[in-house]
Amino acid sequence: MQEELIKQIVEKVMQNIEGYQQTSTEIPVEVSARHVHLSKEHMTALFGDEAQLAILKELSQPGQFQYDKRITLMGPKGSISNVAILGPVRKDTQVEISYTDARTLGISPPLRESGNLEDTEGVMIVAGRRVVNIDKGVMIAKRHIHMTPENAKVFGVEDGQQVKVRIKSQRPVVLEDVLIRVSEKYRLSMHIDHDEGNAAAYQPGMTGEIIK
Amino acid sequence: MQEELIKQIVEKVMQNIEGYQQTSTEIPVEVSARHVHLSKEHMTALFGDEAQLAILKELSQPGQFQYDKRITLMGPKGSISNVAILGPVRKDTQVEISYTDARTLGISPPLRESGNLEDTEGVMIVAGRRVVNIDKGVMIAKRHIHMTPENAKVFGVEDGQQVKVRIKSQRPVVLEDVLIRVSEKYRLSMHIDHDEGNAAAYQPGMTGEIIK
Repeated sequence: MQEELIKQIVEKVMQNIEGYQQTSTEIPVEVSARHVHLSKEHMTALFGDEAQLAILKELSQPGQFQYDKRITLMGPKGSISNVAILGPVRKDTQVEISYTDARTLGISPPLRESGNLEDTEGVMIVAGRRVVNIDKGVMIAKRHIHMTPENAKVFGVEDGQQVKVRIKSQRPVVLEDVLIRVSEKYRLSMHIDHDEGNAAAYQPGMTGEIIK
Repeated sequence: MQEELIKQIVEKVMQNIEGYQQTSTEIPVEVSARHVHLSKEHMTALFGDEAQLAILKELSQPGQFQYDKRITLMGPKGSISNVAILGPVRKDTQVEISYTDARTLGISPPLRESGNLEDTEGVMIVAGRRVVNIDKGVMIAKRHIHMTPENAKVFGVEDGQQVKVRIKSQRPVVLEDVLIRVSEKYRLSMHIDHDEGNAAAYQPGMTGEIIK
């Protein structure tokens, strides 16, 4: 466990060094817990002003962060409290949950690529005594890998392509239809949700490998 | 969806006809919700007498059934109500939950084959105002396929072997280390837990295929 942690720290440090050449084909895997991205309008409606929120922590993708406040999701069947709000503010509000969460809330959001809000589900978002009702924006986010153009070259893949990834664990799985997302702004990381993480007996430091 | 349902019904009917020859290599997949098997001693401690319980429904494996009563599991961090009790009574009490459930309860049960209770976790089992504290018996059950010796011949596998199974869905996954369990008493069915089901976007009628 300690060995894995050290490996992970070294990898993170190396990724921050300019001109670092990728040598491993192991992809760090992160479990994305349920979260919301708020539009400026909904941020104002729920908190008065974005300035009411501070940055709690930076995320693995450069420029992305988690605010220090949280919201509650309410569906026809139940509610989920303490849901993280990720920044910066986006053009449209987007709520990313798991199938387990969808069952708790009593809604049926579709499996979607982030940003494609067509025919997604609605939900009620609550912060203190303020409420926003959205008609769309709730989705099960498709699993994906963030990578730089340099990473893409090493793996021999391109933006928008779907690949199979084997997650190494005591309960190994191969996840198919994993979306490749390439940008200079990204850092190599595979994002799966809690259902996928639990199915693979996720432990921090776990890695995946693209199989062809 | 209706077509799938009809196919499933036909398959179930055919499996009940003596001398039926398996023609498909598709394996029906069932999600096992969290449940407990009680020992006679614990059944008596919780309900006074097994005769207090009736059979609610028969399960896919011949001779297995669900009782009409339910219990609550209590761990150091939280509790889970409405947990199914499966029969018949067993030699030892065994509690099968998912990693999601384990997090809710605040315990860390190991991934185990059913029946192997060594070094498993404890939990508190509550029925009404009666309580049983078990020191072991809680596990994350290893995914497995029940099949007859005839099925095993068709698939070219044997009891105790582990295989990879591809689950066909809108979010396809390949589950590795799937245990084969062969008995004359079984009926062809793959059992996965809710985490694995959600990771594969499980829908009733879904099937899996052994890949080599």
